[in-house]
Amino acid sequence: MLKEVDENSFLYKMRHSLSHVLAQAVQEYRPGTKLGFGPPIHNGFYYDFLLPEPITPDDLPKIEKIMRRIIKSKQEFSYEELPASEALERIASEMKEPHKLEYAQELITKHELETLTFYRNGPFLDMCEGPHVENTSKLPQDGFSLDSIASAYWRGDEKNVQLTRIYALAFTNRKELKAYKQKKEEALKNDHRKLGLEFDLFHIDDEVGKGLPLWLPNGTILRDELEKLAAELEFKDGYKKVATPHITKEALYYTSGHLPFYEEGMYPPMVLEETRLNEEGQEENHQERYFLKPMNCPHHHKIFGSRPRSYRDLPLRFTEYGTVYRFERSGALQGLTRVRGMTMNDAHIYCTKEQIKEEFIRVMELHKKLYDIFGFKDYYFRLSMRDKENTKGKYVENEEAWDYSERLIKEAMDEFGAPYRVEEGEAAFYGPKVDIQFLTVADREFTVSTNQLDFAVPPRFNLKYIGADNQEHTPFCIHRAPLGTHERFIAFLIEHYGGAFPTWLAPVQVKVIPISEKFADYAKKVEEELLGDMVRAEIDNSSETFNKKVRTNTVRRIPILLIIGEREMLEETVTVRRYKIKQQKTMPFSEFRTMLASEIKERRHVLEW
Amino acid sequence: MLKEVDENSFLYKMRHSLSHVLAQAVQEYRPGTKLGFGPPIHNGFYYDFLLPEPITPDDLPKIEKIMRRIIKSKQEFSYEELPASEALERIASEMKEPHKLEYAQELITKHELETLTFYRNGPFLDMCEGPHVENTSKLPQDGFSLDSIASAYWRGDEKNVQLTRIYALAFTNRKELKAYKQKKEEALKNDHRKLGLEFDLFHIDDEVGKGLPLWLPNGTILRDELEKLAAELEFKDGYKKVATPHITKEALYYTSGHLPFYEEGMYPPMVLEETRLNEEGQEENHQERYFLKPMNCPHHHKIFGSRPRSYRDLPLRFTEYGTVYRFERSGALQGLTRVRGMTMNDAHIYCTKEQIKEEFIRVMELHKKLYDIFGFKDYYFRLSMRDKENTKGKYVENEEAWDYSERLIKEAMDEFGAPYRVEEGEAAFYGPKVDIQFLTVADREFTVSTNQLDFAVPPRFNLKYIGADNQEHTPFCIHRAPLGTHERFIAFLIEHYGGAFPTWLAPVQVKVIPISEKFADYAKKVEEELLGDMVRAEIDNSSETFNKKVRTNTVRRIPILLIIGEREMLEETVTVRRYKIKQQKTMPFSEFRTMLASEIKERRHVLEW
Repeated sequence: MLKEVDENSFLYKMRHSLSHVLAQAVQEYRPGTKLGFGPPIHNGFYYDFLLPEPITPDDLPKIEKIMRRIIKSKQEFSYEELPASEALERIASEMKEPHKLEYAQELITKHELETLTFYRNGPFLDMCEGPHVENTSKLPQDGFSLDSIASAYWRGDEKNVQLTRIYALAFTNRKELKAYKQKKEEALKNDHRKLGLEFDLFHIDDEVGKGLPLWLPNGTILRDELEKLAAELEFKDGYKKVATPHITKEALYYTSGHLPFYEEGMYPPMVLEETRLNEEGQEENHQERYFLKPMNCPHHHKIFGSRPRSYRDLPLRFTEYGTVYRFERSGALQGLTRVRGMTMNDAHIYCTKEQIKEEFIRVMELHKKLYDIFGFKDYYFRLSMRDKENTKGKYVENEEAWDYSERLIKEAMDEFGAPYRVEEGEAAFYGPKVDIQFLTVADREFTVSTNQLDFAVPPRFNLKYIGADNQEHTPFCIHRAPLGTHERFIAFLIEHYGGAFPTWLAPVQVKVIPISEKFADYAKKVEEELLGDMVRAEIDNSSETFNKKVRTNTVRRIPILLIIGEREMLEETVTVRRYKIKQQKTMPFSEFRTMLASEIKERRHVLEW
Repeated sequence: MLKEVDENSFLYKMRHSLSHVLAQAVQEYRPGTKLGFGPPIHNGFYYDFLLPEPITPDDLPKIEKIMRRIIKSKQEFSYEELPASEALERIASEMKEPHKLEYAQELITKHELETLTFYRNGPFLDMCEGPHVENTSKLPQDGFSLDSIASAYWRGDEKNVQLTRIYALAFTNRKELKAYKQKKEEALKNDHRKLGLEFDLFHIDDEVGKGLPLWLPNGTILRDELEKLAAELEFKDGYKKVATPHITKEALYYTSGHLPFYEEGMYPPMVLEETRLNEEGQEENHQERYFLKPMNCPHHHKIFGSRPRSYRDLPLRFTEYGTVYRFERSGALQGLTRVRGMTMNDAHIYCTKEQIKEEFIRVMELHKKLYDIFGFKDYYFRLSMRDKENTKGKYVENEEAWDYSERLIKEAMDEFGAPYRVEEGEAAFYGPKVDIQFLTVADREFTVSTNQLDFAVPPRFNLKYIGADNQEHTPFCIHRAPLGTHERFIAFLIEHYGGAFPTWLAPVQVKVIPISEKFADYAKKVEEELLGDMVRAEIDNSSETFNKKVRTNTVRRIPILLIIGEREMLEETVTVRRYKIKQQKTMPFSEFRTMLASEIKERRHVLEW
C-alpha cells in the first residue's frame, strides 16, 4: 500500500504548514497572486496559484529564500472559527480570494456547514482545517526544496481556469531529503524510454506513426510472458479467451454509446464504398463507415449475444489481450505511457445479480495473485462511488441500480479485506469502479487497473440469458484489466525492476560465458540443451576478454551468467553467477537445469541464494 | 503429395478424350460456342467455353445425354500434324476458334514451333497434343458425370474475356465414381462453416462487419495452440518474435510500393487532422493519412532498420502472428476462407547472399516438421520462376539478381529433397517463390503457404548491414508463412480432421462423465487436478442419462472421455474412452495424467492404443 501520512503526525503538520509558508512567499514575490488549494502529499506538498505573470524554475530559489526568512521569523499559527456569513465576508473583502470564496460557498450551501475555520501565521491568512505546527521555527530550514512547476486546472476541471502548481519535497531533515532525492535520481536513470533504447525493447518510428510503438524482440518477450502469465491464471480462474477484429462498422459504436460522445478520442472513420447488386440485379452504390476499436467491450458483448445463454452458463468470463486505438494529441504522446495503440489485458464477466459480489472478490483476488508475482507493494485500492449530492447528468439514471451496485461492490471490497479508499463523485458514467493506484519512479500516482460494474450497457446490446425461472433476464457485466495495457504496464515494469527483470521475464535469461575458446564446445552444448528446454540462453561470442564479458552482461542486467572453464567441462558442471548476488555457485549442469526450470515455472524472483 | 496422373495411363487418356466429347456435345447443344482449354485434372476434367447464351445446372444432364450418344457411336481419335502456316489457316477458317488461334500464334512465334498437332474424332476437331484413347467406345459410359459450372477468365487473366467452365468427374467405372462422390459428400458434411457453428468456433456478425470473424472461445483455443506450436518450433529455429501496430502512416506504403498499386486491395485511409504549434509557436493545421496494414513486411523492415546491423547478426529472423486487413468485395467473402481480416504466421528472414540457400532449406524443413505434426500428406511444392521469354513489365528488372535467385532457390529445393513442380511464368513481381499447394475436401487446390526470395524491397527501405569487409551491404529478405493465415488454415484443419481434432488441439480435451451422482466428488477432483495441469477438462454436468452423455460427447468429437464409477472411485483410477477407438482402458489416474501430459506435449495424434 502507498504510505498514508497520519494527519496528526509531525510530518503532516510540517508539510501542511510549509505549504502556507510557500503561499505567503509567492504572494510576497508576485503581489496580486490568487490562491487555489495547497495540501500535503506523500513526499512533500504543493500549492496552486493564479499568478499575475508566469514564473520559471529560475524563480524557485528566490522563493525558497523568502520561505527561509519566514521560517526564521518564528510566526505563530493561530486558529479561528467564524460563522458562515462572517467567514464569507472575510474571504471576499479581507483576503480577496475568488477561488476560496467559491469553495467556501459550496461548503456552506451544499454541505450545510455553519462555521468555517481559518489559520493565520504572521501576515498570511488561509481558510483551512489544520492541523499545523506551533510556529514556523519548528519547520526544517533545509528539509525541504521546491521541486518543480506544473499546471493544473482549478478543482481539476479543465473547464476551469488554469493555475500554476509548485511542487515541493519536504522531509524532517536535510539527510532524509537528500536520501529521497538520491533514490529518485537513481530511479530516473531507469526511465523506460532510456532503458527501452539501451535494452532494445521498443522503437517508435515517425514513418510508422507517433504513439505506435514497434516492439523489438526483447520487448516482445516481455509482452508474451505477461500474456502467458495472464492466460495461465485466467485459465485456472475459469476465463475463456476470445479474439476479435480491430475494426468495426460504425453502428456498433452507436449501440455502445461511444459515438457520438467519444468520437474525439477515436481515429477517424474509413469510408468503404463498393458497388453491389441489389435484389433486382441492378448495381447500387454502397457506403459503410468502419472505425478502429477504441475498446474491446462491444466486440465481447457481440460474442455474448451470438449464442442463446442460460443461467447455467453464467458467470461467463471472456478475456482477450486486445489491441485498441485511441486518438491522443501528438503533443501529449510520451514513450510507452501515452500512446495511440495499446494492447489491453481486458476481460468482461457476464453474471447474474447474485453473482456480482463473489465475482468481484475473485477479480480482486486475481489482482493480488498477479501483483504478488511481481513483488508490488506500493499500491492501493480506490473505490469510486457516485456523488449522491450532485448526480444530474453525471451518471446513468437508475437510482435503484446505483444503490445496490455500490452496496455490492463495497461489500465485496470489505470481504476481500485489503484496505481501500472511498472517493465520492469519481464513479464512471455507468457504474461504480475500483481503481488500483500505483506510484511511478518519478513519484507520480497512476492507475494500473480499473474494474467497473456495468449495469447500463448490457441492456443497450439487448444481452439476455434464460434464468432458472425460464424467463429472459439481462446480465450484469464486470469490466476488468489487472495488468492494464502492455504499454503502460511494461513501462512501469521496466522502471520498477530498473531493467533487472526476474528470470522468468528477462529477455535473455542465461548468458553462457566460456573462460576461453578451449571450452567453446561444452559452452555450445550447454546453450543447446537450454534452448531445448525453451530457456532463452545465449553464448557470449564477442571477441572481448572474459572479464569484459562478465561486466557487459552484468550491465545488461542478465539474471544468470554461466561461467564455463576447465573444471566445469571435465565435471559437467556450471558456475552460476546471479545478478547482484555476490556468492557464485558451481553445480552439476543437470541440477542447474532442474533448478532453473522450477524458478521459471514458478516465476520466482531470486534475490539471494 | 497430390497424386499426379501419368500422361500415358488409361485414366489420363480417358479423361482427356472425354473432355473432347464434352466440347463436341456443348457445341451441338449450343451452336456457336467457342472453345478455351479443356485439360484432364486429378478427379476428371474440365472445358472452358464462350457460350452464345448461358447454361445452368439443369442443362448438364442434357449435355451428358449427348455425350453418351457420342461415346456409343464409336468415333475414332485420329492424329494429324500440320506445318505452322497451314495449321493457323485451319484454326481460322475451318475451326473458327479465336482463342485457339491466339494460342497457336503464340506457340509459333514465341516458342518457335514449326508444326502443330490436331486430334479429330467424328465431326470434332481440336488443336491438341494428345494422347487419347483409340475410339470413344473405350470411354466409360457411367464412370463420369458433369459436376459443376464455374466461371474462368481466358488464360486465367482477369483482363481477358470470361468463359464458362464445366467441371466433370471421371473414373474408370461407376463404382469408383460412386466411391469418390460418397467420400466427397462425407467431407462436405464437415464444411468449416457448418462445424464452426456446431462447435462454437467462430461467428460472423453483420453489425461488426462482413469478413471480420469474431473468434469464440473454442476457436480461440485453435488459434492459440497454433501460435504456441509455431512459437515453439520457431524459437528452436532461432526466430525472434516481434509485435507491430495494425496501422501506419501512408508514406510507409509508398516506400514499400503497396501504394498506389495495391490501393484497391486495402481499406480506405483514416484522415487525421490536428492543430499543432509550429516552431514560432503558431497554430498550424496538420493532416495525416493512416492505413490499416495489408501486410506485415513493411513494419518488419522498419524494425530491421531501427538499429545498426552487422553481418554477425545475420540471419535475423523476425516472426509475428500479425493481423492484416485487406479489402475484398463483399460478394467474394466466404466463411473463413475469404475474409477481410486475417492473422498471418508471418516471418521475414534477413540474410546475406551466401546464406540464402541454407535459410531456404531451413524454411522448407520447418514446413515439413509442422505438416508432419498435422499428419498432412496431400500437398506438393510448386516452384514459380520467371517466364524468361516474356519478362517485360512483369518482373522487377534485375537480370543478374533473377538469375542467381532462381538458381539458389532451385538448388535449395533439390537439396531439401522433396519432389516439386516448376511453373514458369508464375514468379512474383519481385522474386521467385515456392508455394505449398493443398487440396480442400471439396477437392479444389489452394495455396497454404508462400515463400518468396525478395531482392527488390530491401533496397527500397534502404536496409543495410556492415559486412566482414567493413562496407555497407543490402540484405536479402525471405518472406515465409508455413501456417498461412489462421482463418484459412483453421478452416482447412476443421475439414481435414472433420472436427475430430487431436488432443493437443481440441477445444475440450477431456470430458469427465460420472456414471451417477454418487461419484460427483471424485469426478470433481479429477477435473480439478486436470485443470491444475492446464488440461482443458470439463465435467459433463448435464441432466442427461449416462448413455446419452457418452453419445453427445462422441458426436462433439471430444478426444477423451473419462468414465468415473464405483470401481474408479475406490481404486483412484479412470476408464478412458478415446474417440473412434473401440477398446476402452482403465488405469490409475496418476498414470493417465502422465500419459496425457506427454501426448499433449509431443502433440501426438492417437488413432489406436
